[in-house]
Amino acid sequence: MFTYKTQIRLHDTDAAGLIFFANQFKIIHDAYELLLEKFGFSFPQMLTGEKYFLPIVHAESDYKAPLFVGDKITIAIKVGHIGTSSFSFEYIIRNAKKALVGTAKTVHVTINPKTGKKTPLPFSLHQALKKYARNKGTRT
Amino acid sequence: MFTYKTQIRLHDTDAAGLIFFANQFKIIHDAYELLLEKFGFSFPQMLTGEKYFLPIVHAESDYKAPLFVGDKITIAIKVGHIGTSSFSFEYIIRNAKKALVGTAKTVHVTINPKTGKKTPLPFSLHQALKKYARNKGTRT
Amino acid sequence: MFTYKTQIRLHDTDAAGLIFFANQFKIIHDAYELLLEKFGFSFPQMLTGEKYFLPIVHAESDYKAPLFVGDKITIAIKVGHIGTSSFSFEYIIRNAKKALVGTAKTVHVTINPKTGKKTPLPFSLHQALKKYARNKGTRT
Amino acid sequence: MFTYKTQIRLHDTDAAGLIFFANQFKIIHDAYELLLEKFGFSFPQMLTGEKYFLPIVHAESDYKAPLFVGDKITIAIKVGHIGTSSFSFEYIIRNAKKALVGTAKTVHVTINPKTGKKTPLPFSLHQALKKYARNKGTRT
Repeated sequence: MFTYKTQIRLHDTDAAGLIFFANQFKIIHDAYELLLEKFGFSFPQMLTGEKYFLPIVHAESDYKAPLFVGDKITIAIKVGHIGTSSFSFEYIIRNAKKALVGTAKTVHVTINPKTGKKTPLPFSLHQALKKYARNKGTRT
Repeated sequence: MFTYKTQIRLHDTDAAGLIFFANQFKIIHDAYELLLEKFGFSFPQMLTGEKYFLPIVHAESDYKAPLFVGDKITIAIKVGHIGTSSFSFEYIIRNAKKALVGTAKTVHVTINPKTGKKTPLPFSLHQALKKYARNKGTRT
Repeated sequence: MFTYKTQIRLHDTDAAGLIFFANQFKIIHDAYELLLEKFGFSFPQMLTGEKYFLPIVHAESDYKAPLFVGDKITIAIKVGHIGTSSFSFEYIIRNAKKALVGTAKTVHVTINPKTGKKTPLPFSLHQALKKYARNKGTRT
Repeated sequence: MFTYKTQIRLHDTDAAGLIFFANQFKIIHDAYELLLEKFGFSFPQMLTGEKYFLPIVHAESDYKAPLFVGDKITIAIKVGHIGTSSFSFEYIIRNAKKALVGTAKTVHVTINPKTGKKTPLPFSLHQALKKYARNKGTRT
């Protein structure tokens, strides 16, 4: 399973002393960008290629334990579903003690930037997602 | 119903040309802060009073239509549920043409900052939420 | 003088309890976007028109007094210099008691998006800046 | 010299397609947090210890070349000045081709959180800064 390691930064927190809830979404997107890059679908290419966009149409997060500045976290990504023109990722966030601190989910659709309409997932992305989904769970 | 008007800023967007999904969460929280202030529960007081925190334990968002820099939006807030030590808000986001562009939900619990455990909603907040819930829908 | 009123939001702060320094730059840019809009140079038009960009090549901020969540601030903008292909703005930030809490400066250049090179300020923007600069100081 | 490697994320960019200027300040602060941690002055300790704060009283940035999503950058930190109750850091940002893309500077003062007044730099921080300043230029 793909994992991304990072650390909570001061700008991720707010005056309540913990991570600001919306910043958990920012951090999981960092992990998502790296996974897509690993698949060979980097954002620079997608944005300049203009063949398809992958906007998020739904996102959700659960917060299980507080995260402070300096906390080291690991984000694991699992494939949720793979559809014709959509897919979803699930994120499991653990702290340095491997305790679950949060989970999240993002649902993406493939959009043709010219028409603004749904378009089938590119074949290579579909294959990469399926391959990744098959191998999931082998390692945390 | 409480509504909050704002405008998409350049820093809300990303290189794909639209609002970055996590920033919709930031914007609904701005609306939430103002509603709580209207209830008489301002963040400065809560954070310095240290009697209870209201962390978000779940958040979700749906994205119905793209939002660009400069777009004027209106966020309406409805009470979802009111529990013993939790409540939820639902957010309806419309653009200048009153078209639905997104929805969101946040679930909050009341935490005693000293123990880190759940504590009942303060009576006055419970009353404010119930009163607001009763009047909801009378005005957009 | 153009002034922009806003309020420090929870997501502007960090775990030290005050505004995170970089967010003062975000907030002055909000004011800048509104001033440009008032001049008739809105970001949506600039970004889709693709005739010129106005990137910031230098920015600086001074922090005179702490800002907490909920603090109401007013940002006044003055024109610094107006050059052939550049201009600068100066920002004066005051709290609800009209005390100076910060200042900032941004230097912008006009870039032709096709060549990536400097290009003269559009005549109408040059005129708007000169007119605004003449009238500055009449009102705080 | 301490260097920090990172990558421009989608949320660092805006609809103009490049990094949003204020986010360069966020990224240099990430580097600063890691350097302080290396010195043995982690933010969690400082914020809970409450012996002194190190607020930024001045910050500035120059932008030399555009940064896109996915761009890999390296930030080197040099000590600017070391005073009785203040110090400054200078940041040099290079892209993957080692070209200079930006510079920045932050000026910090030591504040006693109880009085809100300046207090001398802790001896150990003063020593760490001096040692780091002496070794600068050896470069990694």
